[in-house]
Amino acid sequence: MALIVQKFGGSSVANRERLFNVARIVANTHNEGNDVVVVVSAQGDTTDDLIAKAAEITHSPSQREMDMLLATGEQISIALLAMALGELGCPAVSLTGWQAGFHTNRTHTKARIRRMEAERIENELAKNRVVVVAGFQGINRQDDITTLGRGGSDTSAVAIAAALKADLCQIYTDVEGVYTADPRIVKHARKLDVITFDEMLELASLGAQVLNNRSVELAKKYSVNLEVRSSINNVPGTIVKEVVDMEGMLIKGVAKDVNVAVISILEVPDEPGMSFKIFSLMSKHNINVDIILQSAGRPGYKDLIFTVPLDDKDTAYRVLQENLACFGGKSIEVDDSVAKVSVVGAGMQSHPGVASTMFGALYSSGINIRMISTSEIKISVLINKDEADRAVNAIHDAFLG
Amino acid sequence: MALIVQKFGGSSVANRERLFNVARIVANTHNEGNDVVVVVSAQGDTTDDLIAKAAEITHSPSQREMDMLLATGEQISIALLAMALGELGCPAVSLTGWQAGFHTNRTHTKARIRRMEAERIENELAKNRVVVVAGFQGINRQDDITTLGRGGSDTSAVAIAAALKADLCQIYTDVEGVYTADPRIVKHARKLDVITFDEMLELASLGAQVLNNRSVELAKKYSVNLEVRSSINNVPGTIVKEVVDMEGMLIKGVAKDVNVAVISILEVPDEPGMSFKIFSLMSKHNINVDIILQSAGRPGYKDLIFTVPLDDKDTAYRVLQENLACFGGKSIEVDDSVAKVSVVGAGMQSHPGVASTMFGALYSSGINIRMISTSEIKISVLINKDEADRAVNAIHDAFLG
Repeated sequence: MALIVQKFGGSSVANRERLFNVARIVANTHNEGNDVVVVVSAQGDTTDDLIAKAAEITHSPSQREMDMLLATGEQISIALLAMALGELGCPAVSLTGWQAGFHTNRTHTKARIRRMEAERIENELAKNRVVVVAGFQGINRQDDITTLGRGGSDTSAVAIAAALKADLCQIYTDVEGVYTADPRIVKHARKLDVITFDEMLELASLGAQVLNNRSVELAKKYSVNLEVRSSINNVPGTIVKEVVDMEGMLIKGVAKDVNVAVISILEVPDEPGMSFKIFSLMSKHNINVDIILQSAGRPGYKDLIFTVPLDDKDTAYRVLQENLACFGGKSIEVDDSVAKVSVVGAGMQSHPGVASTMFGALYSSGINIRMISTSEIKISVLINKDEADRAVNAIHDAFLG
Repeated sequence: MALIVQKFGGSSVANRERLFNVARIVANTHNEGNDVVVVVSAQGDTTDDLIAKAAEITHSPSQREMDMLLATGEQISIALLAMALGELGCPAVSLTGWQAGFHTNRTHTKARIRRMEAERIENELAKNRVVVVAGFQGINRQDDITTLGRGGSDTSAVAIAAALKADLCQIYTDVEGVYTADPRIVKHARKLDVITFDEMLELASLGAQVLNNRSVELAKKYSVNLEVRSSINNVPGTIVKEVVDMEGMLIKGVAKDVNVAVISILEVPDEPGMSFKIFSLMSKHNINVDIILQSAGRPGYKDLIFTVPLDDKDTAYRVLQENLACFGGKSIEVDDSVAKVSVVGAGMQSHPGVASTMFGALYSSGINIRMISTSEIKISVLINKDEADRAVNAIHDAFLG
């Protein structure tokens, strides 16, 4: 007897067959005596189809109206899943974001959850019903429908688990859990039984793409036990929780991120406040700067080199070019032929051997390191994009082979 | 400067081109200095597509979940129309049924409006925005989404017009107004400039299918001026209002209704209370009985003959057959080879010539009358279905030719 939140993505509910597959998983969990809340995304390509409909009308749709439009996707999914559960004899009720109590700020298309009023969900659970909730959506103070942005359904599921103090929040995906590396790249990649929130955050932000980052942050904040598992094979997945085994296996995984570009600002006067000016500018335009390198150029000048998400490279270039005179740089270069490869594992800082093992593996493979960044639980290197898969394999072999 | 409610059906917003046609009509009305509330239905075949999706899952879907599913159709329309208005430079905001303040009873799939809280609409109008409202839907006391059933968007539009005391409620259709007969059947059918609520009600219930009956009843109750007009041609339509010209043209139209079947109960004992028993039974099963004929059979018995909607004929037959012993009838016959043809016009009762003109027209055409029914503003006859179009033409020629 437990309270379990289960989240299924859009491909898991894409058609009749898959909807019933999900319904069976949910019904089994309910039949075992558990209280179940299910969070679902829009079916398959529904969201893309709706975006295409809007694009036919206008190239600059009101964000508020986009949210009104997109929220229909999950509403269709929840109604159909509740029907499928009913067909299996499992009592169920569907709730939209606003009915489920998701209150957000007013930032349309990427709203953040302000609070969760779970009374309606609790009332429905008390009637022994499975509660099917539309992920990705909520309402703001004006009673306008908002959406949480990409990966928002993961966040919805964790928020419900946090509000209800659920025993477990299961994120169902098309893989069996979190792996030590992408199995499509590394043949010997292994599924992890358990991983910490911090490690998962590093892996997610580094491009492992198993779990949405915001959802992991929220789970960490409210100590929600997460499980990433397969909606196809009924095998235990990977548990994400606060502390694992303090002295256990050091390295949890190797991740590759190709969504990255390098910006170089050459010959900036070496004066106090220059970096501040430049990075304030990036921050003002919501561009996350990651690895930063400052190198000495000719006397009195320096080169400032840093990475930004690939999608932001054009904006970053434009903004910097417009302000080049303000900070007196000579020129700006953009390079998107790079990839970031990282090893992740808690307690890495107290094990200096990690960095040398990683760099040694790259050296043996003849791969040149362009930039390096370290944190308490990860080491990232920037290399040429076309060498990334080889790098991931070499590093994985060195630590986990 | 007026407050105008405009309603557009599903075919009027079926694609990009038609959406912009509607947006232009709305924007023009707004640009002329009017406050505008627009009510729209789901695009084209959307509702049918959603019903088909549900049918893939189950043959007996929960009515609550059907409403959850179907309500997405109008939500898509309002978002797209608001975007199209924005593209034309006309400030607009879309509202779902619950956001617009439609509170209904709890009868899913055919809910009735309990009250309308128009505060949000008024606030948006005060900001000089066109308010685009999802027709057909509301919420009940449990905050569950309900739908109003077929033709519900007409009712939504009239309810808003009533709540806001709008100057006019325009129902846009694919015809130019209300005609003296169906133009597809009668070549010389003429568009009416004006018609009373009662006449419109008779025409609607008799199969003219221009306006939903509930919406006309609501308009009559709250004295909402209605106009039926074309979304394709910008010409004046037909105004529906309380009193027209007391002594004006008598006959407003000729209508045909083929959605009718005749039930005959033969040799019922001629005792007090027999009719009561039989019609109570029909009422208990929500079957509307229309024309009733009682004829003497052999001594001590009578035949009871009446019409029911075509869709209800099987239920009526079954229920009567099961209870045949209770009221001692000999047998039951069902005949659906009939049609009802009616002339409608206020003040008919004080003009005895109407009936004789109608019957004369039918006699001249060699059409046999099987049953007759009259009210203050209509005369209906039941005839063979295959003679119905000929009958409509003959009667139209006699009165309006």
